[in-house]
Amino acid sequence: MSEHVYRVTEIVGTSTEGCDDAIRNGIRRAAQTVRNLDWFEVTQVRGHIENGEIEHYQVGLKVGFRIDGADEATGDAGA
Amino acid sequence: MSEHVYRVTEIVGTSTEGCDDAIRNGIRRAAQTVRNLDWFEVTQVRGHIENGEIEHYQVGLKVGFRIDGADEATGDAGA
Amino acid sequence: MSEHVYRVTEIVGTSTEGCDDAIRNGIRRAAQTVRNLDWFEVTQVRGHIENGEIEHYQVGLKVGFRIDGADEATGDAGA
Amino acid sequence: MSEHVYRVTEIVGTSTEGCDDAIRNGIRRAAQTVRNLDWFEVTQVRGHIENGEIEHYQVGLKVGFRIDGADEATGDAGA
Amino acid sequence: MSEHVYRVTEIVGTSTEGCDDAIRNGIRRAAQTVRNLDWFEVTQVRGHIENGEIEHYQVGLKVGFRIDGADEATGDAGA
Amino acid sequence: MSEHVYRVTEIVGTSTEGCDDAIRNGIRRAAQTVRNLDWFEVTQVRGHIENGEIEHYQVGLKVGFRIDGADEATGDAGA
Amino acid sequence: MSEHVYRVTEIVGTSTEGCDDAIRNGIRRAAQTVRNLDWFEVTQVRGHIENGEIEHYQVGLKVGFRIDGADEATGDAGA
Amino acid sequence: MSEHVYRVTEIVGTSTEGCDDAIRNGIRRAAQTVRNLDWFEVTQVRGHIENGEIEHYQVGLKVGFRIDGADEATGDAGA
Amino acid sequence: MSEHVYRVTEIVGTSTEGCDDAIRNGIRRAAQTVRNLDWFEVTQVRGHIENGEIEHYQVGLKVGFRIDGADEATGDAGA
Amino acid sequence: MSEHVYRVTEIVGTSTEGCDDAIRNGIRRAAQTVRNLDWFEVTQVRGHIENGEIEHYQVGLKVGFRIDGADEATGDAGA
Amino acid sequence: MSEHVYRVTEIVGTSTEGCDDAIRNGIRRAAQTVRNLDWFEVTQVRGHIENGEIEHYQVGLKVGFRIDGADEATGDAGA
Amino acid sequence: MSEHVYRVTEIVGTSTEGCDDAIRNGIRRAAQTVRNLDWFEVTQVRGHIENGEIEHYQVGLKVGFRIDGADEATGDAGA
Repeated sequence: MSEHVYRVTEIVGTSTEGCDDAIRNGIRRAAQTVRNLDWFEVTQVRGHIENGEIEHYQVGLKVGFRIDGADEATGDAGA
Repeated sequence: MSEHVYRVTEIVGTSTEGCDDAIRNGIRRAAQTVRNLDWFEVTQVRGHIENGEIEHYQVGLKVGFRIDGADEATGDAGA
Repeated sequence: MSEHVYRVTEIVGTSTEGCDDAIRNGIRRAAQTVRNLDWFEVTQVRGHIENGEIEHYQVGLKVGFRIDGADEATGDAGA
Repeated sequence: MSEHVYRVTEIVGTSTEGCDDAIRNGIRRAAQTVRNLDWFEVTQVRGHIENGEIEHYQVGLKVGFRIDGADEATGDAGA
Repeated sequence: MSEHVYRVTEIVGTSTEGCDDAIRNGIRRAAQTVRNLDWFEVTQVRGHIENGEIEHYQVGLKVGFRIDGADEATGDAGA
Repeated sequence: MSEHVYRVTEIVGTSTEGCDDAIRNGIRRAAQTVRNLDWFEVTQVRGHIENGEIEHYQVGLKVGFRIDGADEATGDAGA
Repeated sequence: MSEHVYRVTEIVGTSTEGCDDAIRNGIRRAAQTVRNLDWFEVTQVRGHIENGEIEHYQVGLKVGFRIDGADEATGDAGA
Repeated sequence: MSEHVYRVTEIVGTSTEGCDDAIRNGIRRAAQTVRNLDWFEVTQVRGHIENGEIEHYQVGLKVGFRIDGADEATGDAGA
Repeated sequence: MSEHVYRVTEIVGTSTEGCDDAIRNGIRRAAQTVRNLDWFEVTQVRGHIENGEIEHYQVGLKVGFRIDGADEATGDAGA
Repeated sequence: MSEHVYRVTEIVGTSTEGCDDAIRNGIRRAAQTVRNLDWFEVTQVRGHIENGEIEHYQVGLKVGFRIDGADEATGDAGA
Repeated sequence: MSEHVYRVTEIVGTSTEGCDDAIRNGIRRAAQTVRNLDWFEVTQVRGHIENGEIEHYQVGLKVGFRIDGADEATGDAGA
Repeated sequence: MSEHVYRVTEIVGTSTEGCDDAIRNGIRRAAQTVRNLDWFEVTQVRGHIENGEIEHYQVGLKVGFRIDGADEATGDAGA
């Protein structure tokens, strides 16, 4: 009953602004498809460079969400 | 033909009892949604403390399952 | 708009031939179910031995794919 | 105000019984000296062997606790 | 004499704003209790999500400070 | 003379019961062949799943034992 | 021909502002000396503290750039 | 009874041809001395260069084999 | 009773002589403030260079000490 | 005199064929610019996917070469 | 023929003097039992403390040795 | 202006004497070619064995140096 189970999905959020913004973009997208998002963890920070300028930041994220009820489990993290 | 492909999904099982029980809770939940579960691997052991007592153990798990046929792949690990 | 979001799924490709072939088998299977596959990364190389011979190679892979549109996110990596 | 700060201290709990018990012994001891214990994370599991038998299990733990108020910070994790 | 000894303490700073702010909050709190703070190192970046929004960022930090004189060692990092 | 040398051997203990039992099974087997077992360290925890149930837990262990005398070194950890 | 080769160089960018700015400072400096910068990856985030304040952030970066033609290889990353 | 115990030994297979061949050479050699080889895991891939050419590939392998019966344990992995 | 609990504290010992001496300097300083020091583990070796010469070696150490009795826990590692 | 010093440079070799070929392409390119290449070590294996097919394999390599004489050090690994 | 195979064994050398001496003690002991020792790699440095003094240094070592001929494989590393 | 940028180069120093000496040999060689060497970090300790004796110690080092001015960047670490 109170023994929750969580699923962890891995996404990469990107942004032309910086790391915080890339995290927010990733979480926002995941929240469109999955209920009960609970936590995230940064796994890596990379980026793409064009003409000597940072074109976008890429932040790898593990995102956890609760999947207690069988019906809640049918949704996928989208990201 | 005999070249199987597996998918690995990451879940967190929890328990008020201990680590073995948290693993079992996580696997049991994943088995409700996915066929052909084959192996698991513990990725981390954490827990929550309330009033100086362990409220629950949280065991991170990677769970692998076979997805050979295209139709078998439609199910998601749930966890 | 141009802030893409990617999902990373983990699979294990296998082959009786060798590592490159196991990677190709895994990617081929993932491509049956997911659009926009973009990159992969090898996480581990293992194998099974029978009667002193390598029966098959098992290559763990993280596979990334773009999930920008909400409708594109409904597909799962299959693998 | 709502921006909590936590301290993480590292301890090793031991037990002649097993891993879960070693974790509980470590947390119980830490709770004698520190308020607001919040979470733990297992860092390693080792043990000592005597005459071919496991004499005790040793479980390394990181333990986190809230230290918001300046006065609350004077206590040390003890463990 | 010139052979300094340093202590390293581990804290978690949090912020609703972003990673840089979480680091600053953690360091500011540690500086209330400890003299001679010298460097920090980020160990992990996590966060909590509520209703599909990032509620706060949590940045794990190792913080080093000089403890040369015996009297200077009585203070604890607070964090 | 008092400069002991130790050897470290790696085994995998298994159990249908849980992690503590798998550790004990591994150490018990190693003790049949090697004298002077001194410590162990868990390297990984995995398991096999059949029909949605955990068939057995597999706990990887590094086991250390003293090999001071040349004659003591002829025995192998068995495990 | 189309088999590109890349070189990876390691730099540390610093900033008094924060992590994103430290990354930009590092990439900007590398771009003064090397053509064809393609990607970066953050390896660590550290910082220096003076009088209880963060004096500057130090972000370790691996920076990759294409070196296909022999003449293009004579330049060094500068950073 | 059904609680198998495995030993893991570490070898380095080499080849002038490539990685798959180096793995096969290592496993073939180990199979000359040990029964019940069960799995392998690649730990690292290195190589030696002479006159600008790869002289041989060196693949580090952990090799696991079952050691249930006391008599089976007397053999050593050879590799 | 015999279920000891240990605390692990992290320090950095330095020396102009070399690594062994930096370890000794760190342990000597920790022993001024804490009773029951039991073991250490090297976490990293770094150093500072001035005018092309090594000015000092910096050896990161985890130091473990027993904290069984409640009164013994009041002392802090100093380092 | 006989105390050699080596430099380690990091490159990424690519190939449409597979991993061994990507390693060879990387080493071949490095050998155009640097004398005394001595060893390599694979740091990661990634790849790019287009239209569900592997477009090329990317193998990260650390490459070591001897730099004993001052004049030999002027060359850069090119890769 | 020229495709050598190596075995890697893990030992812990100890010394009251320091790290270099602990390495030498470990290698010297391994050489009593195994021919063709080729290389070593330090895996960890720990030590035991008694009465605030370092009682001995413990250096973990992986030691590699060639095992080409079937008859050469019968010896075990001793350490 | 005060936002320094550093480059990190990787070398391997060797010595027949021991680890400290291998570090010094590596740094001394790097200082022949690069100005502004600032810090080093040990990445690994290995060694070569001949006839059961340690022939030389090999210490992997990351070496950092400041590259603020464009003209200062033309020099390479040599090591």
